[in-house]
Amino acid sequence: MQTSIDLVRRHPARYRVLTGDRPTGPLHLGHYFGTLQNRVRLQQLGVELFVVVADYQVLTDRDLADRPAGHAEELVLDYLAAGVDPDRATIFTHSAVPALNQLLLPFLSLVSVAELGRNPTVKDEIAHSRQGSVSGLMFTYPVHQAADILFCKANLVPVGQDQLPHLETTRTVARRFNDRYATAVFPEPEALLSEAPLLLGTDGTKMSKSRGNAIPLGATEDRTARLIRGATTDADRRITYDPVGRPEVSSLVLLAALCQGREPAAVAEEIGSGGAAALKRHVTEAVNEHLRPLRARRAELAKDRAHLRDVLRAGNERANALADATLSEVRHAMGMG
Amino acid sequence: MQTSIDLVRRHPARYRVLTGDRPTGPLHLGHYFGTLQNRVRLQQLGVELFVVVADYQVLTDRDLADRPAGHAEELVLDYLAAGVDPDRATIFTHSAVPALNQLLLPFLSLVSVAELGRNPTVKDEIAHSRQGSVSGLMFTYPVHQAADILFCKANLVPVGQDQLPHLETTRTVARRFNDRYATAVFPEPEALLSEAPLLLGTDGTKMSKSRGNAIPLGATEDRTARLIRGATTDADRRITYDPVGRPEVSSLVLLAALCQGREPAAVAEEIGSGGAAALKRHVTEAVNEHLRPLRARRAELAKDRAHLRDVLRAGNERANALADATLSEVRHAMGMG
Repeated sequence: MQTSIDLVRRHPARYRVLTGDRPTGPLHLGHYFGTLQNRVRLQQLGVELFVVVADYQVLTDRDLADRPAGHAEELVLDYLAAGVDPDRATIFTHSAVPALNQLLLPFLSLVSVAELGRNPTVKDEIAHSRQGSVSGLMFTYPVHQAADILFCKANLVPVGQDQLPHLETTRTVARRFNDRYATAVFPEPEALLSEAPLLLGTDGTKMSKSRGNAIPLGATEDRTARLIRGATTDADRRITYDPVGRPEVSSLVLLAALCQGREPAAVAEEIGSGGAAALKRHVTEAVNEHLRPLRARRAELAKDRAHLRDVLRAGNERANALADATLSEVRHAMGMG
Repeated sequence: MQTSIDLVRRHPARYRVLTGDRPTGPLHLGHYFGTLQNRVRLQQLGVELFVVVADYQVLTDRDLADRPAGHAEELVLDYLAAGVDPDRATIFTHSAVPALNQLLLPFLSLVSVAELGRNPTVKDEIAHSRQGSVSGLMFTYPVHQAADILFCKANLVPVGQDQLPHLETTRTVARRFNDRYATAVFPEPEALLSEAPLLLGTDGTKMSKSRGNAIPLGATEDRTARLIRGATTDADRRITYDPVGRPEVSSLVLLAALCQGREPAAVAEEIGSGGAAALKRHVTEAVNEHLRPLRARRAELAKDRAHLRDVLRAGNERANALADATLSEVRHAMGMG
């Protein structure tokens, strides 16, 4: 089930949104244009925001688990710099909310192995993993996500097309719990489909923290310039917007367009036959200009680590209170006291 | 890896045992001769005992989940009556120890879906389930058991032959965690293989709370007599001990023998050609006599519900302290703070 942004705009007070990130490093432009900006917009509409720092989920990815986990505080810094209002949003750390994780046990009893195996992401992982060694954590990931969403009874989840099956598991869990125990503890959360722009990293593959091809939100202007200067392009001096035929060049064009709130084709036309060098100068300027206020706020916020910790502490407290209340409803519904 | 009872007898202080039951109703003679007596013996040897009231695990069985969960206090009553010493043992409720359940997340990341699917109990469930509808909880059950055992760093687990593969999962999780994070947080628990006598229920099938064919530990002498009187036997008046050829009669003979500390064949010979009626009188007397002191203690203990609750409260407190300490070691080892 999907909800349109128009419906959300008309009745913002009806919605509680759950979103989040794995703390695997600083957020980058892919996150910013993909999800972070959207969260801030939702909050500005008046929707209540829950943001989970999904620290346990770092373990789903063995390569990431080999490195020390990033600091939750770094994420909080990026969130606040981007405009998430800590007085209205609840930012919390997954592992700091034990009652949330306890929901896993009843929730796991409500989905079958066959259903878990049919999840396209899980299927894909199984097909691509060496030695068929998908972990139990990855396999049950959609159920963990159900706990993340349902503990606070979020009823709206911004997702990309590829995450719709995950959300379907959450909806199934909510529905089956309510049916099985003849209760109405959980809402069936709706998807708010967001078309995240496909931003490539500087090497022409998907922008990702773990590939080292990302432009961090908090990078300095100089570093931003260097990273963009090193980006893969092609030899055709005429700049066009053709994501299929010229993915690397088009991604840079798109990035400038996103920063300037313009159409990519218009940006490409303006650069014309300036070649990659002119394109990169244009993109660098667009990114640095667009992010200047955010980065100024970020630098200011970074001076006060105690404030960041306080934001997390308050978020964790609120999340725990909600999780305890939900777990207690769940246990009552199940006849466990 | 298995340990012999002789080794345990020589070095009891080296061992910490984890055992437990699902709170699905009062314990019966199958539990008593299968596991409960053994626990008391281990405790008397000087082994430290942890007993989990596995309330969440009731949900693995859909049929059981349809009924309200039994009371943890009833189990405590049976434990204490049977001789578990609450001053030395830690009796706790699974769901009251949130940090135990948080271990699930890292543990799930250490086993593969292929490994989980190879567990014989799980395979069996999948083969026998209608619509292949084994739940995610059942599928991940060996990992839950790993958390139950490892949270308190138990290093000895009394198991039947059929549970050895489950314990192997616990050993795998412990070993992989230690290897992966270059630490020595967990012991690799050893199995103490116990040959539980095969006691059939009064209908000739396996004695089980859910089949209504069990003789409860706490039954009155009259009820015990009635239940045994109603047990399935056969028409051959000559009583023999032949578990394969005459399972029902032999189970009754075995029950008397267990109560009297005699050989089943000797019991059968003593009854001779008395037929089922004589056999049943003999068994009833043996059971009631053997259980008389236990039942007297049980009746006494049952008067003081507050004491039972205190035992659980103290056990939960101790289990929580241990689980918190273990989780904190685990998080530290994983670089999560």
